[in-house]
Amino acid sequence: MLKVVKIGGNIVDNPEKLERFLCDFARMEGDKILVHGGGKVATTVSKALGIETTMIAGRRVTDADTLRVVTMVYAGLINKTIVGKLMGYGLRAVGLSGADGGFITSRRRAAAPVDSGYVGDPVAVNCDLAAALMEKGYTLVAAPITYDGEGGMLNTNADTVASTLATALAGAGHRVELVYCFEKPGVLTDVNDDSTLIREITPASYRELKACGAVADGMLPKLDNAFRAIGCGVESVVICSAERIAVPGYGGTRLCRG
Amino acid sequence: MLKVVKIGGNIVDNPEKLERFLCDFARMEGDKILVHGGGKVATTVSKALGIETTMIAGRRVTDADTLRVVTMVYAGLINKTIVGKLMGYGLRAVGLSGADGGFITSRRRAAAPVDSGYVGDPVAVNCDLAAALMEKGYTLVAAPITYDGEGGMLNTNADTVASTLATALAGAGHRVELVYCFEKPGVLTDVNDDSTLIREITPASYRELKACGAVADGMLPKLDNAFRAIGCGVESVVICSAERIAVPGYGGTRLCRG
Repeated sequence: MLKVVKIGGNIVDNPEKLERFLCDFARMEGDKILVHGGGKVATTVSKALGIETTMIAGRRVTDADTLRVVTMVYAGLINKTIVGKLMGYGLRAVGLSGADGGFITSRRRAAAPVDSGYVGDPVAVNCDLAAALMEKGYTLVAAPITYDGEGGMLNTNADTVASTLATALAGAGHRVELVYCFEKPGVLTDVNDDSTLIREITPASYRELKACGAVADGMLPKLDNAFRAIGCGVESVVICSAERIAVPGYGGTRLCRG
Repeated sequence: MLKVVKIGGNIVDNPEKLERFLCDFARMEGDKILVHGGGKVATTVSKALGIETTMIAGRRVTDADTLRVVTMVYAGLINKTIVGKLMGYGLRAVGLSGADGGFITSRRRAAAPVDSGYVGDPVAVNCDLAAALMEKGYTLVAAPITYDGEGGMLNTNADTVASTLATALAGAGHRVELVYCFEKPGVLTDVNDDSTLIREITPASYRELKACGAVADGMLPKLDNAFRAIGCGVESVVICSAERIAVPGYGGTRLCRG
């Protein structure tokens, strides 16, 4: 089983949490790919460089200067820091942006109704590049920067990068498990009570949970996206805490075909 | 013949020169690797972030904050910008820092007599990683950031990265040509007169040029380094202008075994 594991900016921003996660990730058995999010460093660097954050209709816009900053921070600092640490833990880690070998090509999002700037939604994955490296024992570390197909880069949501990679690799014949790490132990029926963790969700039980309003609204897009990946061939999706990646079954919520 | 081509910061800093060079590089036939230097963006970012440049005995020191900046700028912004543009020119480019898969491991330079900080001199190259990618038709783009062997990064001179890669790949059985691009057409006996270009230098003629003082002092370390690479199995070293990379023979100075 190939595991595609995604960590968000909240872990990237916390050196202790990141260190612990990477140590655990390095020990996970079998083929695996790590997808990391951005974090706050890009905002700090942007501010220092005097780049103003443009918001349109409540959404942050990736203008040309911001794209340069996220490219340097996500594909440079964060990606290489993670790669170095994983190498230190004995993993043969190779970092890739979507531009490298056309690993992930995306299409720039339409300028209407809201122009997000240099933001792209993935349309293709170079599974041959991934296979060539994985066959030689390398573990890929993917940054959330994708290739626009025309010589440039686009900013892309890390959750989407993870589900795109998982789906594409499932389509290329791998058995794939997609693992989203976040700050909670999993999907909870009461977000303030970790004991209300739901262990497993099937398409049928998901319909029930939605119907009775047992799952928080903010979780719905994540779950919809996860079930979409399962519909596209991913065997299961796990939503768990980054602190439990070394625990069998991740102590989280498993979404499966049912 | 595998070509290892190095471009310096002066080209990286000049968008028009860089564009022209990359267009020419993409059209060069045969296997090739591009090594790029740093450029001034790292200085701009450092200043904006309030990182003071520490000088000891006239040398710039790479402290921990500066290392973070050069990692993001060299391995992120510059490397991925070049990779994207080469992809746009039809090349299947993959960018690597020395940390990726342990591509280039270096040893931190001794703190005495002068402590340069996080600066490393290469000690090993993962030729298997290079071979695995080149066999599949990928062109490597190497950033001058190396792996310290212990989970961290080190800042490394790009000329040294280029000669290290060339020498290691020659040792792994490749026929290698090392090409240093710089701002002059090649080695000149009068630095102000391009017509004084020396077309070829052998170890014997190099001794003569040094003896009669025909080559400028600043060029000697570059030439010594080049002849060292030749002594280690590199077939020839070319010193030429970045603008002539598409010209047969590069219109520059060729150093060879004699």
